[in-house]
Amino acid sequence: MTTKASTVPAYAAPAAGAPLQRTTIPRRAVGEHDVLIDVRFAGICHSDIHQARDGWGKGIYPMVPGHEITGVVAEVGSGVTRFAPGDRVGVGCLVDSCRTCDNCEAGLEQYCTGGSVATYNALDKNGEPTYGGYSTRIVVDERFTVRIPDGLALDRAAPLLCAGITLYSPLRHWKAGPGKKVAIVGLGGLGHMGVKIAHALGAEVTVLSQTLRKKDDGLRLGAAAYHATSDEATFEALAGTFDLIVSTVSAPLRFGRYLGMLRTDGALVNVGAPEEPVSLNLFSLIGDRRTLAGSCIGGLPETQEMLDFCAEHGLGAEIEVISADRVNEAYERVLASDVRYRFVIDTSTI
Amino acid sequence: MTTKASTVPAYAAPAAGAPLQRTTIPRRAVGEHDVLIDVRFAGICHSDIHQARDGWGKGIYPMVPGHEITGVVAEVGSGVTRFAPGDRVGVGCLVDSCRTCDNCEAGLEQYCTGGSVATYNALDKNGEPTYGGYSTRIVVDERFTVRIPDGLALDRAAPLLCAGITLYSPLRHWKAGPGKKVAIVGLGGLGHMGVKIAHALGAEVTVLSQTLRKKDDGLRLGAAAYHATSDEATFEALAGTFDLIVSTVSAPLRFGRYLGMLRTDGALVNVGAPEEPVSLNLFSLIGDRRTLAGSCIGGLPETQEMLDFCAEHGLGAEIEVISADRVNEAYERVLASDVRYRFVIDTSTI
Repeated sequence: MTTKASTVPAYAAPAAGAPLQRTTIPRRAVGEHDVLIDVRFAGICHSDIHQARDGWGKGIYPMVPGHEITGVVAEVGSGVTRFAPGDRVGVGCLVDSCRTCDNCEAGLEQYCTGGSVATYNALDKNGEPTYGGYSTRIVVDERFTVRIPDGLALDRAAPLLCAGITLYSPLRHWKAGPGKKVAIVGLGGLGHMGVKIAHALGAEVTVLSQTLRKKDDGLRLGAAAYHATSDEATFEALAGTFDLIVSTVSAPLRFGRYLGMLRTDGALVNVGAPEEPVSLNLFSLIGDRRTLAGSCIGGLPETQEMLDFCAEHGLGAEIEVISADRVNEAYERVLASDVRYRFVIDTSTI
Repeated sequence: MTTKASTVPAYAAPAAGAPLQRTTIPRRAVGEHDVLIDVRFAGICHSDIHQARDGWGKGIYPMVPGHEITGVVAEVGSGVTRFAPGDRVGVGCLVDSCRTCDNCEAGLEQYCTGGSVATYNALDKNGEPTYGGYSTRIVVDERFTVRIPDGLALDRAAPLLCAGITLYSPLRHWKAGPGKKVAIVGLGGLGHMGVKIAHALGAEVTVLSQTLRKKDDGLRLGAAAYHATSDEATFEALAGTFDLIVSTVSAPLRFGRYLGMLRTDGALVNVGAPEEPVSLNLFSLIGDRRTLAGSCIGGLPETQEMLDFCAEHGLGAEIEVISADRVNEAYERVLASDVRYRFVIDTSTI
C-alpha cells in the first residue's frame, strides 16, 4: 500500500524576505524506494535565512527552509530495505543526486556532477519544488535518509545533519587526530560542532574568534586554547602553529594572516565563505607548501559515519528548542549571533 | 690540506639593474665538510634576472646570480664522506640551513624555519654574502651538494637544480602518475621540465599556454594535449578535467577559470607567483573540495631523487649554451620569452 500524495502543515517564506508564516505544502506519494518521515525537529541553519531572503538569487517561493531534519519513519515504500516504521532517521542538505557519476558512486553525492537536488529551494527530477524540514512530514528516498543511532536525542541530533557533517568531513579528510593541532575559526553553529568533533577525534583544538566573549564555552566544548582575532598579537603568537585551520565564518578573512598560522604542509579549509572575492598573496602558500581549500557538507555514507561517531562519543549540538511561531524572531537572533549554538524547531508546534 | 680562501672570476651585477660584467669574487677556504667545485655550467633562471634588478628589494651587490650549477669536485674537506675529487656534482638554490628544525630533519630544507641560506644574494652564517654559479669555482658544504648521475650531461643537468626540482617536488607531492590528468600552465624553463617529468611519471599531460605557438614542442616533450588559454573555449572544454594543475607563470591567472578545470579533490599548485595579491572566489574551492596550493623548489634528498629519476628516464633540460659575455643579451631574450627553454652559461668562458 502506498500513501497518496498529501498536504501537510509547514512554515514558509511566501516571498523573498517576507516573514515566514504557517501554510500547507504538498508531499508526494510514497514511492517504491521512499520513506515517509514524521518530522520531529528541524535545525535553523544560517543558510536558511540567507535563502529565505533570496541571498543567492533564484529563490523558489513559497520556500520551506530546513535541512537539519530528524524524525521517525511513518511508512516505507515496497522496495525500501534499510528502514522500517518507527525507525529514528535524519535528512540533511540533499534529497537526490544523479547517482551515476563518479562522485555519486564514491559516496560523494555533495559533489555530484550530474546534478544533485537540495532538500529545499530546488526542483526535483520531476520539476517539482522541494520543501524542507520546517514541516510535519517529508518524503525522501531511502538512499538520502540516514539512521539516528540510539543514544542521540532527536533534538540535539538535528543540527548534525548540516553543521555536524560540514565540520566532520573536512576534519576527517585533512586528518585531524592525535598529534595534530587544529584551529576552528568562529564559534557559532558550525564552529561549536567543529570544536566538539575535532576534540573527540583526538586533535588539540584552538578556537579563533573575534573576541573572548565565548571563551568559557569554547573550553568547555573541548578547546585547549581560545584566542581573539581582534588582537594582532594572536597572529604573531600562533605563527606556524596549526596543521589545519577550518574557517566557519562568512566574513572575508585576512587570509595572509591566517595562512601564516599554518605549519609547513598545513591547510586552511573554508566551509563558510564570503560572497565577494577575497584577496590573497600566493607567496603565503608557496613559502611553506600550504594549501587553501574548501569543503561542502559530506556524502551520505560519511553522514552516517558522522552520526555513529557522534553517538559513540556522546556528541550532540548545543541547542535552544523553539516553537515554530518563534522562527522569525530566531532568525533575527541568529543574525545577531545571539544563539548558543543552534535553534531547533519543535515541529509538533507547526 | 685545506685550500686557503681564494679569488675567482665571476659575472656580477655591480648594482641594481646594472648590466652584468666580469669581475672577481672571494671564495672561502675549504672547510672540514666543504666541497670545492669547478663550476662547468650555470643555468639562467628567471629569478636571476628578477634579483639582479632588485625586484624583491634588499639585493646585495655586487650580485653573482646562478643557482642551477653543475661541475666537478676539485677538492674536499677532511670530513667529507660522500664526495671525492673528480665527482660530477650539482648545487641548487640553497647552500645552508639551520639543520635542526623539524623541516631540516625531514629533508625539507627549503622550508627551514631556522633560516636557510640562498646560493646567492644572501648572507651566510658568518654574515658573508653568498655568490652564485656565474663563476668558475664555488665552495659548498657537502650536505648541500648533490650528485649528477652518469648519463646526465652537465650542461643539460644544470637547469634541473632549480627548474627540475621546482616541478618534480609538487608533481610527486600531489601524486602525478598513471591514471592522473595533469596540466602544466606555461611552457617556459619551468614548464617544459614539468611536461617531461609529469609524462615520465606516467601522467597524462596537457599544456595550457597563452597561445599555440609552442604546441609542436609541447607534444614532442611529452604532452598529450595543448590548449590556448587565450581561447575562452578552452576553459569550457576542460571543465572538471584535471587532478592537478601546476602553474609556472608569474602573471596573475584568473583563478576561478583555472580552478574550474579541476576535478573534485583536484589541486592547483603555484610554483610561479604574481607579486600582487590575486582575487579569488572561495566558492571555486568549496564546490568540489578543491585546493589552491604553493610549492617551493625541493629539499636536498628530493633533489637527489629527482636527478636519479631524470637520469633513469633520460631527461635533461632543453638548453641553449652561451658564453658568459652574452649573459645580458640572454636576460633580454628570457624576458621576451625568446628561449627554448633555458640558457646555460658555459663557465669556462668567464
